[in-house]
Amino acid sequence: MIIVTRPDITESQLEEIRERVESHGLRTHISRGDRRTIIGCIGDEALLQEVALLALPGVESVTPILKPYKLVSREFAAEPTVVRVGDGPGRSVGGRELALIAGPCSVESRAGLRAAADAVLAAGAGMLRGGAFKPRTSPYAFQGLGEEALRYLAEIREATGMPVVTEVMDTRQVELVARYADLLQVGARNMQNFALLSELGRAGRPVLLKRGLSATVNELLMAAEYIMVEGNRDVILCERGIRTFETATRNTLDVAAIPVLKRETHLPVIVDPSHAAGRADLVAPLAIAAVAAGADGLIVEVHPCPGRALSDGDQSLAPDAFVDLMRRLRPFAEAAGRVLAVAAPAADPAFA
Amino acid sequence: MIIVTRPDITESQLEEIRERVESHGLRTHISRGDRRTIIGCIGDEALLQEVALLALPGVESVTPILKPYKLVSREFAAEPTVVRVGDGPGRSVGGRELALIAGPCSVESRAGLRAAADAVLAAGAGMLRGGAFKPRTSPYAFQGLGEEALRYLAEIREATGMPVVTEVMDTRQVELVARYADLLQVGARNMQNFALLSELGRAGRPVLLKRGLSATVNELLMAAEYIMVEGNRDVILCERGIRTFETATRNTLDVAAIPVLKRETHLPVIVDPSHAAGRADLVAPLAIAAVAAGADGLIVEVHPCPGRALSDGDQSLAPDAFVDLMRRLRPFAEAAGRVLAVAAPAADPAFA
Amino acid sequence: MIIVTRPDITESQLEEIRERVESHGLRTHISRGDRRTIIGCIGDEALLQEVALLALPGVESVTPILKPYKLVSREFAAEPTVVRVGDGPGRSVGGRELALIAGPCSVESRAGLRAAADAVLAAGAGMLRGGAFKPRTSPYAFQGLGEEALRYLAEIREATGMPVVTEVMDTRQVELVARYADLLQVGARNMQNFALLSELGRAGRPVLLKRGLSATVNELLMAAEYIMVEGNRDVILCERGIRTFETATRNTLDVAAIPVLKRETHLPVIVDPSHAAGRADLVAPLAIAAVAAGADGLIVEVHPCPGRALSDGDQSLAPDAFVDLMRRLRPFAEAAGRVLAVAAPAADPAFA
Amino acid sequence: MIIVTRPDITESQLEEIRERVESHGLRTHISRGDRRTIIGCIGDEALLQEVALLALPGVESVTPILKPYKLVSREFAAEPTVVRVGDGPGRSVGGRELALIAGPCSVESRAGLRAAADAVLAAGAGMLRGGAFKPRTSPYAFQGLGEEALRYLAEIREATGMPVVTEVMDTRQVELVARYADLLQVGARNMQNFALLSELGRAGRPVLLKRGLSATVNELLMAAEYIMVEGNRDVILCERGIRTFETATRNTLDVAAIPVLKRETHLPVIVDPSHAAGRADLVAPLAIAAVAAGADGLIVEVHPCPGRALSDGDQSLAPDAFVDLMRRLRPFAEAAGRVLAVAAPAADPAFA
Repeated sequence: MIIVTRPDITESQLEEIRERVESHGLRTHISRGDRRTIIGCIGDEALLQEVALLALPGVESVTPILKPYKLVSREFAAEPTVVRVGDGPGRSVGGRELALIAGPCSVESRAGLRAAADAVLAAGAGMLRGGAFKPRTSPYAFQGLGEEALRYLAEIREATGMPVVTEVMDTRQVELVARYADLLQVGARNMQNFALLSELGRAGRPVLLKRGLSATVNELLMAAEYIMVEGNRDVILCERGIRTFETATRNTLDVAAIPVLKRETHLPVIVDPSHAAGRADLVAPLAIAAVAAGADGLIVEVHPCPGRALSDGDQSLAPDAFVDLMRRLRPFAEAAGRVLAVAAPAADPAFA
Repeated sequence: MIIVTRPDITESQLEEIRERVESHGLRTHISRGDRRTIIGCIGDEALLQEVALLALPGVESVTPILKPYKLVSREFAAEPTVVRVGDGPGRSVGGRELALIAGPCSVESRAGLRAAADAVLAAGAGMLRGGAFKPRTSPYAFQGLGEEALRYLAEIREATGMPVVTEVMDTRQVELVARYADLLQVGARNMQNFALLSELGRAGRPVLLKRGLSATVNELLMAAEYIMVEGNRDVILCERGIRTFETATRNTLDVAAIPVLKRETHLPVIVDPSHAAGRADLVAPLAIAAVAAGADGLIVEVHPCPGRALSDGDQSLAPDAFVDLMRRLRPFAEAAGRVLAVAAPAADPAFA
Repeated sequence: MIIVTRPDITESQLEEIRERVESHGLRTHISRGDRRTIIGCIGDEALLQEVALLALPGVESVTPILKPYKLVSREFAAEPTVVRVGDGPGRSVGGRELALIAGPCSVESRAGLRAAADAVLAAGAGMLRGGAFKPRTSPYAFQGLGEEALRYLAEIREATGMPVVTEVMDTRQVELVARYADLLQVGARNMQNFALLSELGRAGRPVLLKRGLSATVNELLMAAEYIMVEGNRDVILCERGIRTFETATRNTLDVAAIPVLKRETHLPVIVDPSHAAGRADLVAPLAIAAVAAGADGLIVEVHPCPGRALSDGDQSLAPDAFVDLMRRLRPFAEAAGRVLAVAAPAADPAFA
Repeated sequence: MIIVTRPDITESQLEEIRERVESHGLRTHISRGDRRTIIGCIGDEALLQEVALLALPGVESVTPILKPYKLVSREFAAEPTVVRVGDGPGRSVGGRELALIAGPCSVESRAGLRAAADAVLAAGAGMLRGGAFKPRTSPYAFQGLGEEALRYLAEIREATGMPVVTEVMDTRQVELVARYADLLQVGARNMQNFALLSELGRAGRPVLLKRGLSATVNELLMAAEYIMVEGNRDVILCERGIRTFETATRNTLDVAAIPVLKRETHLPVIVDPSHAAGRADLVAPLAIAAVAAGADGLIVEVHPCPGRALSDGDQSLAPDAFVDLMRRLRPFAEAAGRVLAVAAPAADPAFA
């Protein structure tokens, strides 16, 4: 941490700053310039976190230098973390295999979910997504089927072997959702719902953590730190577009966040091109760009009939568009050194 | 809602769109231009909310026209809502009286809170703020004293008569916090924690709803709608700065949100200049600008010794700076047609 | 400037960084932490500006500490600069008098401009604005009357005594516009048109420099530095709203930029509420908030008949709305310690 | 264009709006809802561009429906435009060949430029970039060698056969720069320097138009329209990152802008990963992502010795890093259906 002082600082003010810093166990280096004195604070910056240095007389600015995260950082774990969501090919995230999660925005019916699952499995997806509890901007919009949807997800996992991913919105739901789902999702609007993060740190299930609409990469990593500090190391980060002034897309996919995160953390990074794009015809180019930039996987909205979807229909791919995406994606995935797990259509013919 | 079609749309595609819209109970007006046909949808747009019109063949764009909120809108209640947080002067928000809420970011100790309460009461504040549960970016930062802090707040309300405001971060805390506090605050990071909003709609206490860092005015109003739809009409909106590219301040105070909200809703609007500014020397000009622009009140961080605060010390006012703010504020409040309630120093001399 | 090194830096890499910095005339302080070594660079940071420190092996991050501006800074001139645009009351910016510039977005006709001038003069404005060369997003939109407009502006200055303000868009126009106008405006889109800024530094006329749509306060000050370094000290800064995600207003007025600029620079700061708001009904609250926050003046779009304006009609005030704004503004200006110059209606009855 | 009226509109106000619209040659469709009447305006919306509809009594909102651009739109030219910058392979932009422009940020010396040119040519680049006039935030920073740099660029084109690209910052420089360079660049800060755009529309040279830091895709297209309307059809668009709240990268590469632009316009789209990233280690993943997303080419900063560069050294690739990028890029380019022109090392051995 670097403290720059005002030109008119007095010696006793300087001394007070120095004492305050050193009383927290850091050392100081004082460099006197022509107009300003600079105080370098050497040691664990986290110890200064609660100290209101700007409020001290004579301080002009305070600049943190070191990263605030620990458990998520590359320095904590040299090897990339591979999160296993289930057994068999296509069920891990962070290794050579490209993780492909697909399915409807919301679970709307048992039959519809099964149709979606069969379609994405046949096309090569390894995991199934589907919302049971839906965060909607309007209280008048469809809020999801709740536990009924969780039961359908579990049924279809039994039938197809695909692990299932679904969102948790409330600390009170964590236990319930963890009973049914293989991977628990934190939505963008809850990325800094710290009570929920802590609860998920104790849930005994891997977590898919989506970046908030206006969260920095730093804040995303700190949110993951909240989960890890409770003992859960199976955290998957997800870039899904940030909010900017541009309205041509629903959000602005921050494709650079992928290599930035890869440099900073050992955790796997996947991308949600559907929420970034906001319209189906842009999903494929964004998905391909994400894999090219080094993403460990994708989570894509696919609906048997997007025009009839109860939520996010505008950005959902129809099954044939998803097949087409998978076909187009393959050479890019290979160029990125990734393996596409062959779909194992373990569908139970008795189901339906 | 206005649907613009692609130049190459076919008659049968056009017919399908029309049928889809009308099947939800709206009427359509079709206007054929030289290159594009425009379909106006007349009726309750909320009924089209779940319909994925963009996913239909031949559709180029879909533009909502009407506002999605109902209970919060000016059309629902012609008269401004006045929220009463307690009895006596300085305890209502939305009327002629300027509401002044002040106090420390976090409750750190019984004596510290009492010192802050005495200071802000003497200076003219009508309500006391103080965090018990703190949302912190880092899991290693001070997280608040929890229920202990709630007890101190209640004690000091008894002693001073000031209603107390504190944040709720988790649905599981609502009942507990509502037992102690007079006004329940939703923090910016939880503005779209819909489970929490719904729970607060049933909590039987007024709610102070802070705008999210990247929430639009529209989304803030929809969040308030979530609370109102559960039966709670006592919602106070709070502008506290949005996230932009500018780093000279912690957030960018969107002062225009005040008149925009006043035009759209009957709910009262207050401003938090402390979080917008991020440093104490900018709090006064932002507070004054907010009142000049029509805010119904302010919520300001005041700490007996900002340099020793465990959180937000950089942006907290010392007691004398708060007295100075109140003095400078008075002529602007009067110019805005507002009354500053005279402080009633009902301090209990036996306390301490 | 602070250089943080990577954990794996070698001694020879460290030495190379040190030599590079010292070869530019700065001193270094090396602080060895547990994992990272921090190099403080003491001296004139501007000398390091061209040095690609991040490109050196072993460097993790580089953080500038000191401000890059000189002539515009408070340290360069302790006293606030007062820019005199003309003689008599209401013609200076930066002193006790509140500067009020008003008039149409574009000069559309001689009679229309005269009507606007008479109206704003009668209401208390001290200077007249009017665009001759208009920067328009579309090449098909009205581009201004050019030199004809300049002649009208000069005529009306003769008739009314009001100094006139108009925009320069091109280095080739500077001489022409300076022949007619008293105050040369740089529009938001040209804030970093460095050739134009340099030319205006030699134009012998005061300059009104508008903040770019996505310019930081720092960049605005550096743009002013471009003008001052050529010898022109009469620079007025203008906050006019920045581009954010919020669409309820045309731009987001950054009201905090006013006190931030006041702290950093001796130059006067005015505000354009019309472009920030984008609609007439929000102009008054933004104007009032700006003056309350410490602005030295306002520049407001006023049109004799906004519904007939060729540009920016949506955000232009009709004359009676401007009169109303002036009336509402007065107590706030007084609360801010400002004087409103009495309008001197020196209109030439023979004109028209 | 859709006009929504206020609930309290009168019949005569409605009639006035209708007349105003129809007087500009458009037809109107009036749809009366329960609370609001909606007026659809059918015809050429450009004719309503200057009409201040919001200023009319009874109007609540005005929503444009159709696109404001013409010459740049897909509807104007069904086939993609291929801009030829020179003869031979690697000198066209917009066809199957991937356009690769590389070279130093600034031309610093004849020998340095030659070294850069040889390196990028050998690695497979088809065109050479190099700044002669540099837009710098600070007036104290290196401003470029001016015409001397232009002479070096022309010399090296003669020696190597590579077309050269350089920036024009001022209308007064257009003729001079066009004498030396093959492709004239408009920098991000000048994207809405409309005088410059118009001048370039008459310059007789292809133009590389960079997106402004906070320009929407729509505004970028309108800026291109300014060039095309003067008769110049050879416009290349360049995405180079936008300004957002995220500071982990210099700018946020808006990778979705590539497919959005491809859908809207026939003009070629290239990407500048260097300015988006702001640091060399992120250039390769962004370059690869851009090509995967459908970009027609790249413009990359390469310097013989980035640590010694006079500008943008932090984000410049060393020659070996550029060779590495080209090697990594090839399979992605092929997956995208692109051809990499084989480098023709036509270096003149007598040169030096």
